[in-house]
Amino acid sequence: MSTKSESTEPKVLPVNFGLLVFPTFQALDAFGPLDILNLLSLDFPMNLSIIARTLEPVSTKPRDPSLNPLRSNFGESVMPTHDFTNAPPLDVLIIPGGYGVLADDLDPLLEFVRRTYPTLKYLLTICTGSWIAARAGVLDGKRATSNKNGWAMTKKIGPNVKWIAHARWVVDGNVWTASGVTAGMDSALAFVEEVYGKDQAQKIAREMEYERHEDPSWDPFAEKYNLPKDIE
Amino acid sequence: MSTKSESTEPKVLPVNFGLLVFPTFQALDAFGPLDILNLLSLDFPMNLSIIARTLEPVSTKPRDPSLNPLRSNFGESVMPTHDFTNAPPLDVLIIPGGYGVLADDLDPLLEFVRRTYPTLKYLLTICTGSWIAARAGVLDGKRATSNKNGWAMTKKIGPNVKWIAHARWVVDGNVWTASGVTAGMDSALAFVEEVYGKDQAQKIAREMEYERHEDPSWDPFAEKYNLPKDIE
Repeated sequence: MSTKSESTEPKVLPVNFGLLVFPTFQALDAFGPLDILNLLSLDFPMNLSIIARTLEPVSTKPRDPSLNPLRSNFGESVMPTHDFTNAPPLDVLIIPGGYGVLADDLDPLLEFVRRTYPTLKYLLTICTGSWIAARAGVLDGKRATSNKNGWAMTKKIGPNVKWIAHARWVVDGNVWTASGVTAGMDSALAFVEEVYGKDQAQKIAREMEYERHEDPSWDPFAEKYNLPKDIE
Repeated sequence: MSTKSESTEPKVLPVNFGLLVFPTFQALDAFGPLDILNLLSLDFPMNLSIIARTLEPVSTKPRDPSLNPLRSNFGESVMPTHDFTNAPPLDVLIIPGGYGVLADDLDPLLEFVRRTYPTLKYLLTICTGSWIAARAGVLDGKRATSNKNGWAMTKKIGPNVKWIAHARWVVDGNVWTASGVTAGMDSALAFVEEVYGKDQAQKIAREMEYERHEDPSWDPFAEKYNLPKDIE
């Protein structure tokens, strides 16, 4: 059990989770953390809402033909459970990244993030999901990270964010931002450890046969892209 | 480029991929390998069919109430593109695992695996997806692995399979079987390396910021469960 779990304060655990999806989201950004939470939900009472602009299936496929030059027909569609008008109150909002984060029709989604953030216990972003949070303005003044392939754009999209390039994930208050794609799994396991205890995080990692990175500063990818050590 | 890629034989790359889904499949078993292939499909022409018994959404949620004692409402639903009667010819079939693999209503799915296997270039299973392949009889006489939490059941379900406990993944002919959940990502990257070349596998791992395990015999989880070193 973590020190926090041994506190004499009774802890109110988050119950209502929401995943935001949009066209051309990155599948593993969403399903890495979600599958960790799927396993957690067998041990704790939890609800998941999958939230999109409409209740139509949402696909990972590129909408922009220039991203799909070979005309592959390859992608997966998930079913939303709620739209932006009827999503229930949430304790935790999860925002994946993907090529879709720069779409020019995301205003309703950004507005949803903007009005939902103040009601959350926790906000979790993965990869360029941080670009959505930054576009919504909820990262302003906060320390945060993002994927490492596209760092110049990260700084451009969130000029008022304290971006940290060398990080597997960053926690600032109730905001957890993860680096690229699989970093979301390490961030999610660290979140489980913080909120539900270390035993629970280790149990889930073992069930998934996952060798987790427990050090948030572990980041060989920042080094590959030759990114700066300091806050930018 | 791998040695194989440098062969003078022109290689016919697989184009048509299929993912088999069924109620209570394990999300990351599917979406780890799939997201690797999603990225690959931007560089190679590829099609994905998601195949289930019907075209209704297929959920990861437990159907068996005993698996969900706290009555969580937590899971994700994916949209099939084909059913067992109209699935197109496939080069590669991917079978995830999950609690649903032991359901007693899988006969149509097992029959689909049985009749499809002889037409495939490659069969990939992840975690207890190997139990489905074993139940269909297509692993008989082959070396294979599975997840490490449930090894006694693995042997019971496939008494004629040469199960290898200490393995992140196992290749026997055109059959690639991965160990538990995240092992599917290492197996899928090794598959990409074998078929599309090492550069491609490394590029995708870097894009996903994933520290891959390249040694198929790496398996600390077999040691945690105290499993035997030899073929069983």
